[in-house]
Amino acid sequence: MRAVQVVAYHRNLELTELPVPEATGPWDVVVRIGGAGVCRTDLHILEGQWAEKSQVQLPYTIGHENAGWVHAVGTAVTNVREGDKVIVHPLITCGLCRACRSGDDVHCEASQFPGIDTNGGYADYLKTSARSVVRLDDALEPADVAALADAGLTAYHAAAKAARRLTPRDRCVVIGAGGLGHIGIQVLKALSPAGLIVVDRNPDALELALSIGADHGVVAEGKQVEEVLELTGGFGAEVVIDFVGEGGSTSAGLAMMRRAGDYHVVGYGENIDVPTIDLISAEKNVIGNLVGSYNDLCDLMALAARGAVTLHTAKYQLDDFQSAIDDLDAGRVRGRAILVP
Amino acid sequence: MRAVQVVAYHRNLELTELPVPEATGPWDVVVRIGGAGVCRTDLHILEGQWAEKSQVQLPYTIGHENAGWVHAVGTAVTNVREGDKVIVHPLITCGLCRACRSGDDVHCEASQFPGIDTNGGYADYLKTSARSVVRLDDALEPADVAALADAGLTAYHAAAKAARRLTPRDRCVVIGAGGLGHIGIQVLKALSPAGLIVVDRNPDALELALSIGADHGVVAEGKQVEEVLELTGGFGAEVVIDFVGEGGSTSAGLAMMRRAGDYHVVGYGENIDVPTIDLISAEKNVIGNLVGSYNDLCDLMALAARGAVTLHTAKYQLDDFQSAIDDLDAGRVRGRAILVP
Amino acid sequence: MRAVQVVAYHRNLELTELPVPEATGPWDVVVRIGGAGVCRTDLHILEGQWAEKSQVQLPYTIGHENAGWVHAVGTAVTNVREGDKVIVHPLITCGLCRACRSGDDVHCEASQFPGIDTNGGYADYLKTSARSVVRLDDALEPADVAALADAGLTAYHAAAKAARRLTPRDRCVVIGAGGLGHIGIQVLKALSPAGLIVVDRNPDALELALSIGADHGVVAEGKQVEEVLELTGGFGAEVVIDFVGEGGSTSAGLAMMRRAGDYHVVGYGENIDVPTIDLISAEKNVIGNLVGSYNDLCDLMALAARGAVTLHTAKYQLDDFQSAIDDLDAGRVRGRAILVP
Amino acid sequence: MRAVQVVAYHRNLELTELPVPEATGPWDVVVRIGGAGVCRTDLHILEGQWAEKSQVQLPYTIGHENAGWVHAVGTAVTNVREGDKVIVHPLITCGLCRACRSGDDVHCEASQFPGIDTNGGYADYLKTSARSVVRLDDALEPADVAALADAGLTAYHAAAKAARRLTPRDRCVVIGAGGLGHIGIQVLKALSPAGLIVVDRNPDALELALSIGADHGVVAEGKQVEEVLELTGGFGAEVVIDFVGEGGSTSAGLAMMRRAGDYHVVGYGENIDVPTIDLISAEKNVIGNLVGSYNDLCDLMALAARGAVTLHTAKYQLDDFQSAIDDLDAGRVRGRAILVP
Repeated sequence: MRAVQVVAYHRNLELTELPVPEATGPWDVVVRIGGAGVCRTDLHILEGQWAEKSQVQLPYTIGHENAGWVHAVGTAVTNVREGDKVIVHPLITCGLCRACRSGDDVHCEASQFPGIDTNGGYADYLKTSARSVVRLDDALEPADVAALADAGLTAYHAAAKAARRLTPRDRCVVIGAGGLGHIGIQVLKALSPAGLIVVDRNPDALELALSIGADHGVVAEGKQVEEVLELTGGFGAEVVIDFVGEGGSTSAGLAMMRRAGDYHVVGYGENIDVPTIDLISAEKNVIGNLVGSYNDLCDLMALAARGAVTLHTAKYQLDDFQSAIDDLDAGRVRGRAILVP
Repeated sequence: MRAVQVVAYHRNLELTELPVPEATGPWDVVVRIGGAGVCRTDLHILEGQWAEKSQVQLPYTIGHENAGWVHAVGTAVTNVREGDKVIVHPLITCGLCRACRSGDDVHCEASQFPGIDTNGGYADYLKTSARSVVRLDDALEPADVAALADAGLTAYHAAAKAARRLTPRDRCVVIGAGGLGHIGIQVLKALSPAGLIVVDRNPDALELALSIGADHGVVAEGKQVEEVLELTGGFGAEVVIDFVGEGGSTSAGLAMMRRAGDYHVVGYGENIDVPTIDLISAEKNVIGNLVGSYNDLCDLMALAARGAVTLHTAKYQLDDFQSAIDDLDAGRVRGRAILVP
Repeated sequence: MRAVQVVAYHRNLELTELPVPEATGPWDVVVRIGGAGVCRTDLHILEGQWAEKSQVQLPYTIGHENAGWVHAVGTAVTNVREGDKVIVHPLITCGLCRACRSGDDVHCEASQFPGIDTNGGYADYLKTSARSVVRLDDALEPADVAALADAGLTAYHAAAKAARRLTPRDRCVVIGAGGLGHIGIQVLKALSPAGLIVVDRNPDALELALSIGADHGVVAEGKQVEEVLELTGGFGAEVVIDFVGEGGSTSAGLAMMRRAGDYHVVGYGENIDVPTIDLISAEKNVIGNLVGSYNDLCDLMALAARGAVTLHTAKYQLDDFQSAIDDLDAGRVRGRAILVP
Repeated sequence: MRAVQVVAYHRNLELTELPVPEATGPWDVVVRIGGAGVCRTDLHILEGQWAEKSQVQLPYTIGHENAGWVHAVGTAVTNVREGDKVIVHPLITCGLCRACRSGDDVHCEASQFPGIDTNGGYADYLKTSARSVVRLDDALEPADVAALADAGLTAYHAAAKAARRLTPRDRCVVIGAGGLGHIGIQVLKALSPAGLIVVDRNPDALELALSIGADHGVVAEGKQVEEVLELTGGFGAEVVIDFVGEGGSTSAGLAMMRRAGDYHVVGYGENIDVPTIDLISAEKNVIGNLVGSYNDLCDLMALAARGAVTLHTAKYQLDDFQSAIDDLDAGRVRGRAILVP
């Protein structure tokens, strides 16, 4: 089969031929790829930023946002069968540790991450686990939802956690209306009755945000804290979800938040640097957010199946992977780039 | 009546004569003071650290940890009557804003703070509100519990919030076994089945901690993060409550915490300064903690009434307030200093 | 002022002249009525069904679903002022008991219920409390929202409690698409991402339900349990909200529910009669629901202000109260009957 | 190996020789039995009460409360190894359905129940799954904890669910201080700060309850509702856990409960038969309780390891199983009867 591999850091990816993986372990599931998302993390991998953390041996196949059809299953697999249309949760988890037994599988003590620390989905086939595949509704196509497997799942997870405390009188600020924020807004609309204020530097992104359900758009031109305070009667918002995490968004996010509010950090880059007295006197919380669990992915697919969450995609042939990489790097992709076979 | 007042910053307190306050408003309650806690915050007030924040007019009567007997009540008061033994919640709250209507009265939009921004309890009598008084069990005496009104209440609030997620398999680290930590440990023992690890620089404080229920004591001599990791199988604790908040305790606290853990900040001083990537990749939370609500104070008094929370006190006559202040400043008070009439 | 009173049981209501109530107590609020809902409970009162329970002295003014404008306020009232447009929570609560201090004011230990045990709102003016009035958004008119004060608030409370556990993969059954169910469906759409299945005997009510957001309508003709099981893959729904509570709806409701599900009882009439072994082996819960709290009413008004909850009303002049009563009794009212001044 | 089997209903169990089970499936775990609890359910099985429900083929090996040492493991097992001391969760669950993925494995859509619907632990060896074994602390012995695997786990589950809402001011009533109640009281003491009132017909059982931490004992002689009301200021208890479920305990349990309270049903036998109006007007909840999850069993073992939960046992040799059955049937067992090899 074809596979696109990292052969060295600071060098282009290369297309190669590999044997189709086999379902040798009892819970193995081999998926014929229908779509593989091209993510900014893939650019960072090529720059070597993940080398030390992942300890992956080169060459290996990249690609961690995958969907397709079940091609083969291990002897113990009962939840999917050959031919099933599936999206692939980014982690392969053990199923036995306390986190896995609690539905909190992203904190598995012995997980693998295909596309990061083992072979991923820029290929014709991918080997994953029965614990990682979610069957898709007839209404959904693998290439259309592949990018929800990681970027979308991260946005879902943060938005769903935040939504638990939101009531009709609350206001939630979303900082960053790009790829993740775009999904987050749709999820918040589906899960919560709160008013949504979206903050972004790009007026076009704000217009898109308003068209999918945001109640207010605030251009981040230096006065965004004041504007959010004004929109919230001087008190600030009950919840802030920060999909940016750099360029000053963390201190702005905390400043536009009401007493006893939750600041959710999702995007990353800068440090959170805040006096303890400020957190204490207003009893504010800083909530970390990782990618979503298997259950979160099932829930997100339920929303996608009824059209409550959609994503714009630009499709590229697998052989044309370099164009996708180049377009992403140059900012020429609207929505998400997807490799299709 | 006698009252001890701040007459100027950077000057000693002065004893003066004032009229006994009257219950003029419908919810007013005048309390004859049985005990008033002498708190480190009182020293900070004298140094002028609160001047700008509180905007209080000098002279005014200091003292925000109060208990005693009801002396007079306003026309609408139905929850206490003359002669009742009460502890006084530190805030006077409005009862009508959203926070008050939700049981979250410390975030009241129009509160007063006797002893900080209006007359407090270093006096024979204090004016407060029906919304602020908690009747005491027969087993409790005002002078013994007065210091639970603010310092103890803060510790209760953080410990009770933290306890909600703690199970028998979890470990909770308490950083700082001083005044607040001492109460926090007792509350955690009463409310949670988790293992308790206490970290402090002072071996004597650790011994006391072990005697009131802590499972492990760790001397903070530079290796405390490693020791906690070792005590928790290399994973870290599910919850950390930091009653110190300075001298490096915030970064140590975050480092000794397990993935998906909660770091509760109670003590303050330094900045929390943490890379967003660290909070995200381990999905850690930083939880702010203010003083407890009226309900928290009722719950704490229920624990105190059955002897589950006790506090060592050193009593001083009201006229001898300067000795109490001097002893506190010099570190000569074991437990809490209390002024009695 | 005019007031419509119960003068004896099993006799028609009578219009009389009374003095306008005055704001004598510190938290009193006198409201000039803009709309008073005519409720089936009012018919039951006339039949004497509430006589023993309420212990009300006749004659008294009936009417417990009220909205209007603030006419006068007591000396301590700070949350509303003369002229404010308000809806009136059905209970006057004490603000001091544990339930009130916890935001759970419907369980107040010393409440009054105007229209049931003291004078209500079939009148030009009503005396209530600062703790009971919610300011209305400019977009809302008293006569349009009055019926949300009790019937709508009950539906909101149950739907909001139920929604807390509902995820995008869950299904919620609403039994009864009449007055309360109609509001419940709208609230569930706003607060939850679950699929909604509505069960009613009346096909017209189901059509209306589908038009306001229900996903499936099931005619209750004897096969409703089987149909719900079929719609839920044989498992049953995660949550059932029963707005009927008689004619077999309780056992049907429990039977169409999945293991570990919540059956919310709102409507009443028959007994719940279920073998303990059935509740245990499937770990099902039966959840009681009373009218909503003050906070619930604020949240419901926030939904109403943005058009997320609407109610069809038929308006009658106050003097024409008998027509409203007669029409309600004869089943001639579509939506809710409202008396206007 | 030896195995004690049901050969026909209404006939004595019989000892037979069977081959030792083998770990043929990837997640199979074969346990050498160190102790097998003899439970009243075993008597009911012999009476044929479970025949239709379990559909089990006779003959089969009885015994569903098991602990011992790992004898052999399947190819994919990573959480235990040969020689490990373990307790066995009563269910073998699939690990793939939504319930299993949510930590709620007792609601698994494809579970087996050794001792009920497949071979159990009145034997030298038992075949179970990696998902069902919990490693024991060095301080615990299989024969001492075996009865915690089902009876104890059921009590833990109900007590832990109930404890979540209990605060220091609350009162929890435990109805029935027998086998399950005895564990429930110890768990409530460890997990909750509430006052504990225990109701039982047997004064000796109450004395034992007081000795392990109950605050009040009430003899159930017909006045138990009044006595609980008196102990709770006339209001009733916030939570009732009913380990009896027959002889009128369900209506008494609901009657001794405060408004907005939770009545937990654990024991079974009679019907719950309550007017809907009573549940609604006081907003009471009836909460079903099944056996605990795998996580619950891990938590219970953590409590047992530190001595917070203990159980009196009477040990019998496996060959002497008939004496154990006879003694249980005749009420001659104090605590739990355990078969040891």
